[in-house]
Amino acid sequence: MTGPHSSAHERVRPDASDQTMTELLLLSNSTAPGKRFLEHALDEIREALSSCRLLFIGFASSDPDAYTEVMRQALAVLEVEVLGAHESADPRRAIQEAEAIFVGGGNAFRLLRALDRLDALGALGSTVRAGTPYLGASAGANLACPTIRTTNDMPIVEPPTLCGLGLVPFQINPHYLDPDPGSTHQGETRTRRIEEFLEENDVPVLGMREGSWLHVSGRRIVLGGENGWRLFRCREEHLEVPSGTHLSWLLQWPARFDVTPVGHDQ
Amino acid sequence: MTGPHSSAHERVRPDASDQTMTELLLLSNSTAPGKRFLEHALDEIREALSSCRLLFIGFASSDPDAYTEVMRQALAVLEVEVLGAHESADPRRAIQEAEAIFVGGGNAFRLLRALDRLDALGALGSTVRAGTPYLGASAGANLACPTIRTTNDMPIVEPPTLCGLGLVPFQINPHYLDPDPGSTHQGETRTRRIEEFLEENDVPVLGMREGSWLHVSGRRIVLGGENGWRLFRCREEHLEVPSGTHLSWLLQWPARFDVTPVGHDQ
Repeated sequence: MTGPHSSAHERVRPDASDQTMTELLLLSNSTAPGKRFLEHALDEIREALSSCRLLFIGFASSDPDAYTEVMRQALAVLEVEVLGAHESADPRRAIQEAEAIFVGGGNAFRLLRALDRLDALGALGSTVRAGTPYLGASAGANLACPTIRTTNDMPIVEPPTLCGLGLVPFQINPHYLDPDPGSTHQGETRTRRIEEFLEENDVPVLGMREGSWLHVSGRRIVLGGENGWRLFRCREEHLEVPSGTHLSWLLQWPARFDVTPVGHDQ
Repeated sequence: MTGPHSSAHERVRPDASDQTMTELLLLSNSTAPGKRFLEHALDEIREALSSCRLLFIGFASSDPDAYTEVMRQALAVLEVEVLGAHESADPRRAIQEAEAIFVGGGNAFRLLRALDRLDALGALGSTVRAGTPYLGASAGANLACPTIRTTNDMPIVEPPTLCGLGLVPFQINPHYLDPDPGSTHQGETRTRRIEEFLEENDVPVLGMREGSWLHVSGRRIVLGGENGWRLFRCREEHLEVPSGTHLSWLLQWPARFDVTPVGHDQ
């Protein structure tokens, strides 16, 4: 097995002992049609939070102030107090001391660059592995994966690497969209993009439709929400995964990045 | 003015003297609905080619062999002989000795990684600046820009940098799609993605609709094709650009990447 970078190798495949503490809620989207921000996921959020204090990481947005305010209003109904990581004089320490963490959506490249600039990626990963609940939507779900290589975002900035936190050993594609057979657009479909990822990496990809979520509690993984999932693996048929499915076996599935040998003249 | 990387700075902004030789034809797409591969652009390709021998760079695809064969068949009608760069024992030298170069579409991250592995990026840039015509479709159009930061592609692999050839000083977004007002999908529209790029970079972006092309001849830039363009700039209204427009002034427009200061904690 190879990691996307040798330096990030250990981060990519957490071993069983440090996985058992992890509590994750990963959402495809923060806003559902006709509903208020996060309204579609409030029950899940309530269940994932063990505390009434939440640290919000809004660095995927260009305006973390406004984004944090939106979060405050959305979670007021749960009586959750929201602190913005960017409001702290020491965001890295705020992460280490957080009772629960929510990483908001936006642009995954911008999120990764901001956390790298704050030297906070390692602290975030170890805090969550030690048991602090991690909630993430869209880019926040990408960040929980070994890499952000299955983001839909435009690479508007260049973080030093595309390695994420590796809180799960597989990849997630948020906002997954089924191919539109009537489209005349010549750009790649989402399915084709994920297949391109699988040409280069032997790592399962969960296509997370709007309104879907994934709940990891220790070594238990449950997929939920309204619209089901699509599971993509190398050399296997794509698989439809209905809501309520347990996918704990995915934690054992091998993940091999960059299967095209280095130096290969492609 | 700052480049996306100090080391790539000179590549990003070619000066007037080395720009004057450049001959570029950049296409949004290789295939148009109801037409054969490249059929919609054959007149432009014929005009851009000064030779009947063409080096094809198909590294954006996972199968350069098959891709080169498709190119051969597509250009047979122009009596153009196509050699695949991957078929050469020394692709870097083949680039330097080429009479004309066509960089095919696929995945821009894979293309950039392949050219980096072959140590061929610098040779490609200087060959084109010395007068060898460069034709590119989709990922091949992204590569001609200062960076590939306005690609639509998934970052399936991680090239060492996102810097492109800088043959033009602005960015192109191929397969540009106008927002669909009826969509309930919560992922970002293309327009929103380009606006996110402009939050971080003060660089013009040409949204290139399907069937559109851009022809650069020395310091002359003409936009052509069927469907027009959309021009995005920082702090300016988006501008509709009809086919036939001359945009040579864009070569003088300042390009400032990473306008968020390094170390800024958002």
